[in-house]
Amino acid sequence: MGAAVALGPGKADLLDAVDQAGSISAAARNMGMSYRRAWILIEAMNRDFKEPLVETSAGGSGGGGAQVTAAGNEALRRYRAMEHKAISAVKKEMSAFANLLNEPSQDS
Amino acid sequence: MGAAVALGPGKADLLDAVDQAGSISAAARNMGMSYRRAWILIEAMNRDFKEPLVETSAGGSGGGGAQVTAAGNEALRRYRAMEHKAISAVKKEMSAFANLLNEPSQDS
Repeated sequence: MGAAVALGPGKADLLDAVDQAGSISAAARNMGMSYRRAWILIEAMNRDFKEPLVETSAGGSGGGGAQVTAAGNEALRRYRAMEHKAISAVKKEMSAFANLLNEPSQDS
Repeated sequence: MGAAVALGPGKADLLDAVDQAGSISAAARNMGMSYRRAWILIEAMNRDFKEPLVETSAGGSGGGGAQVTAAGNEALRRYRAMEHKAISAVKKEMSAFANLLNEPSQDS
């Protein structure tokens, strides 16, 4: 707990969103996240990893774009594989845990 | 991704903090979280689970307190067990993943 995590669910989803949207601002918008928060998370990832996970390209008329780098795709692929394996390991416990929850309400 | 999670790392840490601090405001302060955000997360947990995970007691001179309920302790215990098992399942992958990261800097 406590220590910052180089890559977690939120950052992984943000990488996916940048990959799909091609810019940080569009990715943030698609995730309902502020541009500022998306930028801070991406800066943190680029600082925490040996190679940057996201590269930005300046300007032109439409503003700059952003691309997930090869290192970013590799980190994301490995993160998703771990996520999948970790979830699989506790599948039975998660089903039992779900019994503690209310039924999802109709309107959500 | 995307769907709200009834209990995750942030909410689990918040339950621990409430358990230790005995009030929502002290728990929020100890976590560097706003009171408003702590309150929203606790409301969400109490709504999502069949039994409330946190109970508040009104007032007195020192302001109200908050306690993690028996249901809350049970949910937290099972969440921590799943977390431990899930992490154990990907221990090798996590070590390899760490090689993608920069060494932690001296000042952090």
